[in-house]
Amino acid sequence: MKIFEEIESEVQSYARNFPRIFDRAKDEFIYDTEGNEYLDFLAGAGSLNYGHNNDIMKKRLLEYIEHDGISHSLDLHTEAKREFLETFHEKILKPRGLDYMVMFTGPTGTNAVEAALKAARNYTGRSNVVSFTNGFHGVTMGSLAVTGNSHHRGAAGVSLSNATRMPYDGYMGDDVDTIEYLDKVLSDSSSGIDKPAAAIVETIQGEGGINMCSMEWLQNLHVVCKKHEMLLIVDDIQAGNGRSGTFFSFEPSGIEPDIVTLSKSISGYGLPFALALIRPDFDQWKPGEHNGTFRGNNMAFVTAKAAIDAYWSDDHFEKEVRRKGSYIEQRLNAIVDEYGEGNFTTRGRGMFQGINCVNGDIAGQITHAAYKQGLIIETSGADDQVIKLLCPLTIKDENLTKGIDIVEAAVKLICKRVDEIPEESDYFDDVILEKNSENPEEPT
Amino acid sequence: MKIFEEIESEVQSYARNFPRIFDRAKDEFIYDTEGNEYLDFLAGAGSLNYGHNNDIMKKRLLEYIEHDGISHSLDLHTEAKREFLETFHEKILKPRGLDYMVMFTGPTGTNAVEAALKAARNYTGRSNVVSFTNGFHGVTMGSLAVTGNSHHRGAAGVSLSNATRMPYDGYMGDDVDTIEYLDKVLSDSSSGIDKPAAAIVETIQGEGGINMCSMEWLQNLHVVCKKHEMLLIVDDIQAGNGRSGTFFSFEPSGIEPDIVTLSKSISGYGLPFALALIRPDFDQWKPGEHNGTFRGNNMAFVTAKAAIDAYWSDDHFEKEVRRKGSYIEQRLNAIVDEYGEGNFTTRGRGMFQGINCVNGDIAGQITHAAYKQGLIIETSGADDQVIKLLCPLTIKDENLTKGIDIVEAAVKLICKRVDEIPEESDYFDDVILEKNSENPEEPT
Amino acid sequence: MKIFEEIESEVQSYARNFPRIFDRAKDEFIYDTEGNEYLDFLAGAGSLNYGHNNDIMKKRLLEYIEHDGISHSLDLHTEAKREFLETFHEKILKPRGLDYMVMFTGPTGTNAVEAALKAARNYTGRSNVVSFTNGFHGVTMGSLAVTGNSHHRGAAGVSLSNATRMPYDGYMGDDVDTIEYLDKVLSDSSSGIDKPAAAIVETIQGEGGINMCSMEWLQNLHVVCKKHEMLLIVDDIQAGNGRSGTFFSFEPSGIEPDIVTLSKSISGYGLPFALALIRPDFDQWKPGEHNGTFRGNNMAFVTAKAAIDAYWSDDHFEKEVRRKGSYIEQRLNAIVDEYGEGNFTTRGRGMFQGINCVNGDIAGQITHAAYKQGLIIETSGADDQVIKLLCPLTIKDENLTKGIDIVEAAVKLICKRVDEIPEESDYFDDVILEKNSENPEEPT
Amino acid sequence: MKIFEEIESEVQSYARNFPRIFDRAKDEFIYDTEGNEYLDFLAGAGSLNYGHNNDIMKKRLLEYIEHDGISHSLDLHTEAKREFLETFHEKILKPRGLDYMVMFTGPTGTNAVEAALKAARNYTGRSNVVSFTNGFHGVTMGSLAVTGNSHHRGAAGVSLSNATRMPYDGYMGDDVDTIEYLDKVLSDSSSGIDKPAAAIVETIQGEGGINMCSMEWLQNLHVVCKKHEMLLIVDDIQAGNGRSGTFFSFEPSGIEPDIVTLSKSISGYGLPFALALIRPDFDQWKPGEHNGTFRGNNMAFVTAKAAIDAYWSDDHFEKEVRRKGSYIEQRLNAIVDEYGEGNFTTRGRGMFQGINCVNGDIAGQITHAAYKQGLIIETSGADDQVIKLLCPLTIKDENLTKGIDIVEAAVKLICKRVDEIPEESDYFDDVILEKNSENPEEPT
Repeated sequence: MKIFEEIESEVQSYARNFPRIFDRAKDEFIYDTEGNEYLDFLAGAGSLNYGHNNDIMKKRLLEYIEHDGISHSLDLHTEAKREFLETFHEKILKPRGLDYMVMFTGPTGTNAVEAALKAARNYTGRSNVVSFTNGFHGVTMGSLAVTGNSHHRGAAGVSLSNATRMPYDGYMGDDVDTIEYLDKVLSDSSSGIDKPAAAIVETIQGEGGINMCSMEWLQNLHVVCKKHEMLLIVDDIQAGNGRSGTFFSFEPSGIEPDIVTLSKSISGYGLPFALALIRPDFDQWKPGEHNGTFRGNNMAFVTAKAAIDAYWSDDHFEKEVRRKGSYIEQRLNAIVDEYGEGNFTTRGRGMFQGINCVNGDIAGQITHAAYKQGLIIETSGADDQVIKLLCPLTIKDENLTKGIDIVEAAVKLICKRVDEIPEESDYFDDVILEKNSENPEEPT
Repeated sequence: MKIFEEIESEVQSYARNFPRIFDRAKDEFIYDTEGNEYLDFLAGAGSLNYGHNNDIMKKRLLEYIEHDGISHSLDLHTEAKREFLETFHEKILKPRGLDYMVMFTGPTGTNAVEAALKAARNYTGRSNVVSFTNGFHGVTMGSLAVTGNSHHRGAAGVSLSNATRMPYDGYMGDDVDTIEYLDKVLSDSSSGIDKPAAAIVETIQGEGGINMCSMEWLQNLHVVCKKHEMLLIVDDIQAGNGRSGTFFSFEPSGIEPDIVTLSKSISGYGLPFALALIRPDFDQWKPGEHNGTFRGNNMAFVTAKAAIDAYWSDDHFEKEVRRKGSYIEQRLNAIVDEYGEGNFTTRGRGMFQGINCVNGDIAGQITHAAYKQGLIIETSGADDQVIKLLCPLTIKDENLTKGIDIVEAAVKLICKRVDEIPEESDYFDDVILEKNSENPEEPT
Repeated sequence: MKIFEEIESEVQSYARNFPRIFDRAKDEFIYDTEGNEYLDFLAGAGSLNYGHNNDIMKKRLLEYIEHDGISHSLDLHTEAKREFLETFHEKILKPRGLDYMVMFTGPTGTNAVEAALKAARNYTGRSNVVSFTNGFHGVTMGSLAVTGNSHHRGAAGVSLSNATRMPYDGYMGDDVDTIEYLDKVLSDSSSGIDKPAAAIVETIQGEGGINMCSMEWLQNLHVVCKKHEMLLIVDDIQAGNGRSGTFFSFEPSGIEPDIVTLSKSISGYGLPFALALIRPDFDQWKPGEHNGTFRGNNMAFVTAKAAIDAYWSDDHFEKEVRRKGSYIEQRLNAIVDEYGEGNFTTRGRGMFQGINCVNGDIAGQITHAAYKQGLIIETSGADDQVIKLLCPLTIKDENLTKGIDIVEAAVKLICKRVDEIPEESDYFDDVILEKNSENPEEPT
Repeated sequence: MKIFEEIESEVQSYARNFPRIFDRAKDEFIYDTEGNEYLDFLAGAGSLNYGHNNDIMKKRLLEYIEHDGISHSLDLHTEAKREFLETFHEKILKPRGLDYMVMFTGPTGTNAVEAALKAARNYTGRSNVVSFTNGFHGVTMGSLAVTGNSHHRGAAGVSLSNATRMPYDGYMGDDVDTIEYLDKVLSDSSSGIDKPAAAIVETIQGEGGINMCSMEWLQNLHVVCKKHEMLLIVDDIQAGNGRSGTFFSFEPSGIEPDIVTLSKSISGYGLPFALALIRPDFDQWKPGEHNGTFRGNNMAFVTAKAAIDAYWSDDHFEKEVRRKGSYIEQRLNAIVDEYGEGNFTTRGRGMFQGINCVNGDIAGQITHAAYKQGLIIETSGADDQVIKLLCPLTIKDENLTKGIDIVEAAVKLICKRVDEIPEESDYFDDVILEKNSENPEEPT
């Protein structure tokens, strides 16, 4: 570990919670250099929906590299890009009746968001963009301005402008229709809210704590955007690629957003790749206005096509995700019924669910206890109060069960401690101890 | 080509100048789907310093994938990252006496720049950043604010703030010391230039037209930065990784910048990868303040380590680059002596050189004529007036000669036409024709 | 009128609704050059609380000028300033238990607001300021950023930043406590609302349409400001100086704002004058940080002192204002009961009241009809839908009655027309006609 | 003095250097409450070009008030405004061939600047504005962004944006044509300087240290503005109204700026008043877009008209100013020849001249020594290094002589001390002592 302490920047984050050196990975498992096996319920923060090193994509990737398929191509046309575009068109866009231009924005989610915001601002000639409480869209300056997290915002070192924050669905309680409020300020010429170029929204806020908007709210947002001649951008970077139970998370609403951002699992193999899907009317870029060196990551094209072919040629995979999602929901409901003294709640849909522990300390102790049992799992939310289950969508049923069993055991352990102050628990002392030590024990 | 026209965004750029579908690539050559071979003097805009699909890195990459080495790891510690860090430390930083923390910023150059700017602003508590005329640092909003190009700036759709533009070395003619001017405004409490957090500079401005600062100017900039307690950020994304004749482009100056950004060729294989090197004093990030999904592109770690081992274990490669650089310089000087009626000039150093044709139309006609002879080469500069030679550093001598021969022939052809209005030239008419047609002929 | 058409800028506004040349004025009356008399229910938009050319102040002003009392003094100490400060201290601040430093900010309201925002930002080190829907604070760039009106905001020609808009009391309906929402976003570290330096608020929004916050809401705002360590700025430029029934409009709440801005009627004679009152802890200016040429308008000091002596030495004047306010309330209630088919409502308190006609066209027709009967009266609100009664506080009872009688007659006339389409009304046709003509008839 | 210490804000500035209570004033003299007489070479920082309480204007003002001429009129048409407009048109604009619309912007200089910037931004649709090193245009947020002084800029508490700073005439030495540099960055599409809406400039920078641009430089700036389709705004607030030897300071150049701002001495009596003069093409305001309560300060209209009638009906006054200016120049040249060991220089033209002492401490000691001899005089410049002579233009010759005599004596005294360390000087010790005491002695 010495080299990491010596010369890796202090900015490192996940590595602090899981202080091991990882080496190999397969499907829902990863292994450290000492051969310990971990069940992965973090899955690259949603970048590994098809598991680690999925054999279907792996085979195609090896062939491509072996045959000297072009690796880097800026934005030149390549055979790999052509095949990806055709497959994406045939198997994703067309069956869903979606009519988008595909923009290769640079291979990170934040780059896709920056491109989407530019397209909207240029098309409308307006500067302001509406975003929502607890939204997360990336940490480059344009995306950061529409991101809620103060930890990340504070790091900018400058004021973030041209963004207006509005309350997300449910933020003001069940009785307040926050879209009605949005419509009111946009209709009121003295509200002080400048006419926006766009609204950007996640249908499920991953980093924000698995907050979910209703499909009705999303439809109403779409109507209000049309009314005020602003674009609707759905950031589907974390919730897309099947995570919610459909390829795009907004499908159940029936709307067609003006721009959709995709990244994370779109390559299918954890490779850097991102897209902005733009309705043809709004794709009014001049050549090269938004550019970047790595828009042509051909290895990602290859694995992305393979993933679509394998999982999205019919509806089998979607159904499986929804089936597993129901199982997760049922298990989590049982857990919050049993533990947390009525304070815990479940959140999310599909295989994007979690437990809101209200208190970030408790959530952190639970995920740490789970880690000690061999489960990699993280928290999210403003206070890290939500335990976020993000296992590969391809996970075997027995491993899904096993992972949730570990979560349940950890919840039980920590809640018992918190509620009953169990002085007899040696184990618990260890947990506390390790939380504060620099060399935590390994899972056994 | 149909699918590209139908659903790829209008933003595409390079593809417009080289309207072929490329497929395979090896070293300094790329091939289209019809088997045509092209000599590559664009090389991923500097991302392929070791050529396409370099066999040394390819071997290691295949082994890594075959053995299910972890592909995606967020910022977790991995064996591949450990090996990269140790190699980078031992073979790059240590021998050069450089003391940096290594920050994985997300895998694109603009992400590294955004991280560098944040680090400087947070450390100093100041907002303003000095950048230079014709500088290019990326197109996400933070980087774009310090970028000069109005085409890209205009795409932002909002005002870009917290940046002050200063004249680069030579911008005001040979008689004006632009660092003296910088020092004057920073020393003058009523100049209206707010104390900056940092200055960000390229030692050779690739996109800006291969403008080069002198080492003395760079040293003076370093002195002025220290005097005004601001950080010096060298953006070595295009000029670094050996391109200029040393690993870092600033090495001949003897200075140690406070932050260095690297990307493009750092992976050695064209894979998305970027770093910010930060002097330990300034690496005061809180955990996760700057984050991103693809900070752990392990395949890039693997090929980056292999590239350093192969090319930077001793000074052989550097010497080769300088030897080839001298050859390029000699050839280009001969060309500008012969053609352009005294208006053309050469620019750059190492294997980062070009011809300033003053006029962007002429430069474009020259590169297009070269393309018709099987050479991929691009222009840069505010008016695209500079022909930019960016071949792989590993190029065989005979292919280097061949490429420059094609450039020379193209210069000759176009200059003859421009100067002498050669009505007899059939060939030339074709060039003009194709320039304006949608289906240009192929090189033969 | 020729010279106005020829060389006065197109920006002129009030002059368009009252296209006469005015000459003399006394108390609640003004006179045009043809000798026509008008009852003034606009009163300098609240700048003439003591009427035009009030004899008490006039006498002192003439004496001061005749004796060559210093007229312009930058911010030098003068005897006139000394006397004003002592009187303001003894008769305004001390009796109300208020402990403020008095800042001469430059003589316009917007200058006082700019100074207040600076003081808050400098003290807290934060950039963001909370302001409220429909708030109006001035049109210089700093004040404009916290102003709601899109007509004025649009004139800036740049994005207005460092301001967050929140819903004013009642904006989201009676059931939503908008201070609770404010507290929630400020307590939520991922809400995306940066910690503010201050909240700026009017207790009665004059330009915004005579929207009034409850004293409980104001108290809660004060509590939330303290909780989040931000300053509370009450902009009392229009509602202060007795207009609401007490000298400061916030007095009934019992709170002591951190900063109060005063202007308009503070000079008592319509002379340019403005103040920021700052609690001593927050008065941490360095000398001259905020400056301006006309901070020492000594004539205004003289008349301001005279006004305080005459009207604020005891509580007689306040009681008179409240008595007249009750009469206004009673009359306006009767009007909205009788006309407008239940759509009209009354708003405001003290002598700051109005009728919300919902529809701006109707409100405009009513004020125009009143003008034709010799009453100067204006509208406000996002759609100019509120008829705003702003007569001098010193108005004689009979003239107050007369003015409201004219308003009532105008309401009756216009409502009859709107509701009953009274074809027989010659008079009404004239109104319509004149509304669209460039040379409207004069009141008779 | 107690009340000032107790409740006047810490922001007070001039009062610190001249800690007396002033009471009466006449022409070039002011008097404190103890009857001490001071010769005024500060003159309201250029607001009292016609002296204090000039009898010509005083007479008209008294008549106006006595007859209940309307005092406050928002922007209604009034007889006083009409008369001012006609006089200004006939005697100022027409004889100079200037074709402007007159905008009443609110009565302070910064308000006129804010209005000018808005007009330029709205007309051009551009955000950026070019301003110059050491320029001073006011402290409200819009004006502050184009102001150089870091003391004032720092007080904003936010980043100031949409402004680009360029070097003023002579800033880079005599050999560099700074307009050529401006033209170069505006012509270079990759300079990073966004196309500006306007350039704003003072022909003589009063607060910046009496820096003066040549008429040729101003003409070239005008040409460059036209070339790049941006407006030229001349801020003539301090240099206008005859101060430089002509009514407008730019007259000798022959150019007609697109917008001119006027304030300070325009009322002629030290009353708050400001104008923006806008060429008809650019006066495209919508009604009321820029507003403010005190746009109709009728007393200022009355005295402004009287001042124009008295001083600008023929060229007598201008000639007198130039004659006195020559005398000042001659005297100041003699002083810098004699004292300061060759380091001091003179600056300025007309009756807007000063001595650059290079060192702010020395300049401060000189003005303080002069104050002790009964002369009110101030410094300016980034380091307060320039002694600024701003006496009334109407000053009697003998008093001009007397004032400069005092300046000379003070220079002599302080320079002797600085150069010769004269231990015998009791007087000098007092000066030093008093500089640091809170109750400096009075002039005798």
